[in-house]
Amino acid sequence: MSMSRASRSRERLVVVGGDAAGMSAASQARRLKGPDELEIVAFERGHFTSYSACGIPYWVGGDVTDRDQLIARSPEEHRGRGMDLRMRTEVTELDVEGGRVRSRDLESGAEEWTSYDKLVLATGAHPMRPQLPGIDAPGVHGVQTLDDGQALLDTLARTAGRRAVVIGAGYIGVEMAEALINRGYEVTVVNRGQEPMSTLDPDMGRLVHEAMEGLGITMVNDAEVTKILTGGDGRVRAVATEDVEYPADLVVLGIGVRPETALAEAAGLPLGDHRGLLTDLAMRVRGHENIWAGGDCVEVLDLVSGRERHIALGTHANKHGQVIGANVGGGYATFPGVVGTAVSKVCDLEIARTGLREKDARRAGLRFEKVTIESTSRAGYYPGADPMTVKMLAERRTGRLLGVQIVGREGAAKRVDIAAVALTACMTVEQMTALDLGYAPPFSPVWDPILVAARKAVVAVRAGSAP
Amino acid sequence: MSMSRASRSRERLVVVGGDAAGMSAASQARRLKGPDELEIVAFERGHFTSYSACGIPYWVGGDVTDRDQLIARSPEEHRGRGMDLRMRTEVTELDVEGGRVRSRDLESGAEEWTSYDKLVLATGAHPMRPQLPGIDAPGVHGVQTLDDGQALLDTLARTAGRRAVVIGAGYIGVEMAEALINRGYEVTVVNRGQEPMSTLDPDMGRLVHEAMEGLGITMVNDAEVTKILTGGDGRVRAVATEDVEYPADLVVLGIGVRPETALAEAAGLPLGDHRGLLTDLAMRVRGHENIWAGGDCVEVLDLVSGRERHIALGTHANKHGQVIGANVGGGYATFPGVVGTAVSKVCDLEIARTGLREKDARRAGLRFEKVTIESTSRAGYYPGADPMTVKMLAERRTGRLLGVQIVGREGAAKRVDIAAVALTACMTVEQMTALDLGYAPPFSPVWDPILVAARKAVVAVRAGSAP
Repeated sequence: MSMSRASRSRERLVVVGGDAAGMSAASQARRLKGPDELEIVAFERGHFTSYSACGIPYWVGGDVTDRDQLIARSPEEHRGRGMDLRMRTEVTELDVEGGRVRSRDLESGAEEWTSYDKLVLATGAHPMRPQLPGIDAPGVHGVQTLDDGQALLDTLARTAGRRAVVIGAGYIGVEMAEALINRGYEVTVVNRGQEPMSTLDPDMGRLVHEAMEGLGITMVNDAEVTKILTGGDGRVRAVATEDVEYPADLVVLGIGVRPETALAEAAGLPLGDHRGLLTDLAMRVRGHENIWAGGDCVEVLDLVSGRERHIALGTHANKHGQVIGANVGGGYATFPGVVGTAVSKVCDLEIARTGLREKDARRAGLRFEKVTIESTSRAGYYPGADPMTVKMLAERRTGRLLGVQIVGREGAAKRVDIAAVALTACMTVEQMTALDLGYAPPFSPVWDPILVAARKAVVAVRAGSAP
Repeated sequence: MSMSRASRSRERLVVVGGDAAGMSAASQARRLKGPDELEIVAFERGHFTSYSACGIPYWVGGDVTDRDQLIARSPEEHRGRGMDLRMRTEVTELDVEGGRVRSRDLESGAEEWTSYDKLVLATGAHPMRPQLPGIDAPGVHGVQTLDDGQALLDTLARTAGRRAVVIGAGYIGVEMAEALINRGYEVTVVNRGQEPMSTLDPDMGRLVHEAMEGLGITMVNDAEVTKILTGGDGRVRAVATEDVEYPADLVVLGIGVRPETALAEAAGLPLGDHRGLLTDLAMRVRGHENIWAGGDCVEVLDLVSGRERHIALGTHANKHGQVIGANVGGGYATFPGVVGTAVSKVCDLEIARTGLREKDARRAGLRFEKVTIESTSRAGYYPGADPMTVKMLAERRTGRLLGVQIVGREGAAKRVDIAAVALTACMTVEQMTALDLGYAPPFSPVWDPILVAARKAVVAVRAGSAP
């Protein structure tokens, strides 16, 4: 059975991947063109559409009680908006020349070709899964999809032991550590890097490390997992590094993700250094007039370094979807790039970053000055004023802001947005010292921590530019 | 007795006013020039230096327990840094021609002239005090200075009745309403305007009104106070409008402030439409090479409307002081202007604004589109996600951001900083839709409320620009 282009007068849009980027693109295109002008066929290999993968740690941790709360729009809702949505159907081949995709129904195994006039690739990312002995043992869990989350929750309900090991200490790792602490587990995080949160410089990661230990989490750095040990029942019983075995009734993989681009690669579409699809600013795959790509499967331009990066984040995926949908629907929109903003928390510790770390700046060929300041979230005399550490990088001589990292308590994380906008606007740290930021004692010291950092950075830039 | 210029080889800086702007200027100048190069004489008519007037409502309300917590630096600390600080000494005359000021010791009544090479005017603002019958009765309080705050606290301790009337519903009025609620008073706020918080558009002020009523505060709008009634003991007993008498054991004036510029005006220095001193971007009084002014006594350039405004806010005063001190000390710095950011709260209701209100935009000759959206402070499914209303104004055709107002709960107020930076950078609302703002479920929906508003504003600008 096959759907051919010749039999249709209206255009057909095919979307591969039914989560944020794909379904946002489809929805936006549908708003601009009705079913009489545009037919939309979307393929999703999983059980769910348009869900918040970012919310999974909070569902596992019990902050979110109902899985369906994480689903922004169900397959039925999408179908109600005039989309031909094929659930549990995997696209197995892309024929760019012929303008068609081959799909397989994962339930029945039936295959078919579907032709397209316009194609959106939103295949997402897959979690890195080290090829370790024991990695497939029962009790070892990834947390990438809702299905993963459900499987982990089932294991939590069944497991008598209370010792959990999280492998990896990036966003997913620390969020899962919090989730498991909330579930009453003894948590050990085994981390390959020097400090947790390698998206921060190590000096800032150190603050996260200390806070995690304060929460009772055992943090093991500079440790490479060599194997996962199983017991007589075949279930996981420990995680081993070169030197040490960490007993584990449960193992969570939080090592990060890679773009899911096997399909695109096989079809000869352009991939970047991080294996993500390369697009132009309208999110069109480079060199392909009628193929767009967005979400976790693409690389994005980092506006500060001028390099492509891979960042798997729902907020970017949604923006990509909007941009793609506008362009597919005959409008015009672009995604200019990112500055690398990310926020997270471990219990009440807030963690934020935007722009370049020291090593990013060096890699981009930039010389820079760096300052770190301590301030508070509110006026020092106001109840609940919590300490906050802000690190700021500015380019030598020009004084252009390059990056900000923040570790603190309530009110720390979203302050990074100030720096994110300043980076987008290419502001210098001296310009930042004059920013008219909201001030009242319950919300900020009279000099906001970002201003305190900017003032110190100005001094550093002046000193660093002296002959 | 008199200090003359002829007898000195080093320069003398005279500072009039010992709060944020004046003492920041003095401190910064001292950092750049030691006592052998620069003599610093500062006059303060009150009992305190460098204190947070913005903190007074929280001291009165009991959130801050100790007055001294509001004092950033005492007279003794300033003196320890090589400043000749004359407390309780009022400057009564400025002789610009002769380069000298006349001062009077408020304790002894002694007067003297002090010559200056450089002069900093930081005379602050005075609360508006309507000329009403009964305004000077015991039990009627302003809350501008620490002395005012202490007097009010003394009255609270002595007053048996629990009925308080706050006159005025701007920042000070609503913050004092909160303070008195916290002290267990029945609070009525009598407001001349259509809604409380006239720094917001009335539709947003309405949300504040409703929240205040939810807190048990009686909010009376469109009401002009005609007199303050006293009892047989001479103390306040009620506040009267044309039609109604509001029983009051205590009255707080929260009507706002005016620049304190009588001294400058008598000396012929240039004042603006709001009676504030006019300066250049280096905070030098226009036309006067060796006189600077900053803090609540000056007008500042509004970068959005291109007009001068008067904004009494500690954070601006501190910035002015830094800029003045750098320039007085032989360095270089400027204060480019403000975008009009302000944040406040009434109990757990957060209120924020930046840029222009509708009437400001009209007054500046701008045509605009306006949108209002409802969103949440966190992902909708995350515990503690609170509703947030964001209003956004964008210029017609260009789409340039003109202003943002936010009313919500936790996490609402400081979100306005995103818009403050975007205004400073002259961003369009379309550019704002691509901002890389921090996203994680505990901190934001996948589309931050600011992005939701920007997206809706883009649609409004397109529709408004259609032929």
